[in-house]
Amino acid sequence: MSQSEIATVNRQFEDAARKGDLERLASLYTRDAIALPPDSPMVKGRDNIKQMWGTIAQQIGLKDVRLNTIDLDMSGDTAYEVGEANLTIANGSAAVKFVVVWKKVDGQWRLHRDIWNAKGA
Amino acid sequence: MSQSEIATVNRQFEDAARKGDLERLASLYTRDAIALPPDSPMVKGRDNIKQMWGTIAQQIGLKDVRLNTIDLDMSGDTAYEVGEANLTIANGSAAVKFVVVWKKVDGQWRLHRDIWNAKGA
Repeated sequence: MSQSEIATVNRQFEDAARKGDLERLASLYTRDAIALPPDSPMVKGRDNIKQMWGTIAQQIGLKDVRLNTIDLDMSGDTAYEVGEANLTIANGSAAVKFVVVWKKVDGQWRLHRDIWNAKGA
Repeated sequence: MSQSEIATVNRQFEDAARKGDLERLASLYTRDAIALPPDSPMVKGRDNIKQMWGTIAQQIGLKDVRLNTIDLDMSGDTAYEVGEANLTIANGSAAVKFVVVWKKVDGQWRLHRDIWNAKGA
């Protein structure tokens, strides 16, 4: 059941990214989340993560995100996911791979640690 | 206690990297570990991770690694760490940030998921 709950949040993430709804996107993270975008310092907390996504979306011209879970394991109220993301951006597409540590807070799965890098050729 | 056990494995990781002991380095990962190096496909399993480190060490001229744990949380036999690594390499130094998901297997903490990217300016 937790697996499908996390899949649902991933669909919400895609939807928010597609619509450029930064408020919604940030709300899918825990309050004390840490995001680790490539070639930048780490970003702590929902407000800063919201700003980060605004900056990234603008920089790359983000139009669409598709998340593909490759591995998802549970340990109590924590889960960790390995996946790939395909992005549609201003000048074509980009493929990244990621690890997300999920945490269940107040009955809802939220992204707690989020790190990604380029998939390469 | 688990925190100090994981710190000990991080010291073993540094030591193996410094000595170029790929066998030892790979042994600190779980058998079904996944490593996600930047700009490359993901790497599954100890043997492939050993090869990966051999390739990376040669490419960058790896001389020394210092791991700095910024955040470490436990959930049963799983732990997840956010940290930074400072590398001494052929042409100077490099700074990366990472997320490691640790798993306790047969009483020993091992790297189970390992992803990093550049820290940036």
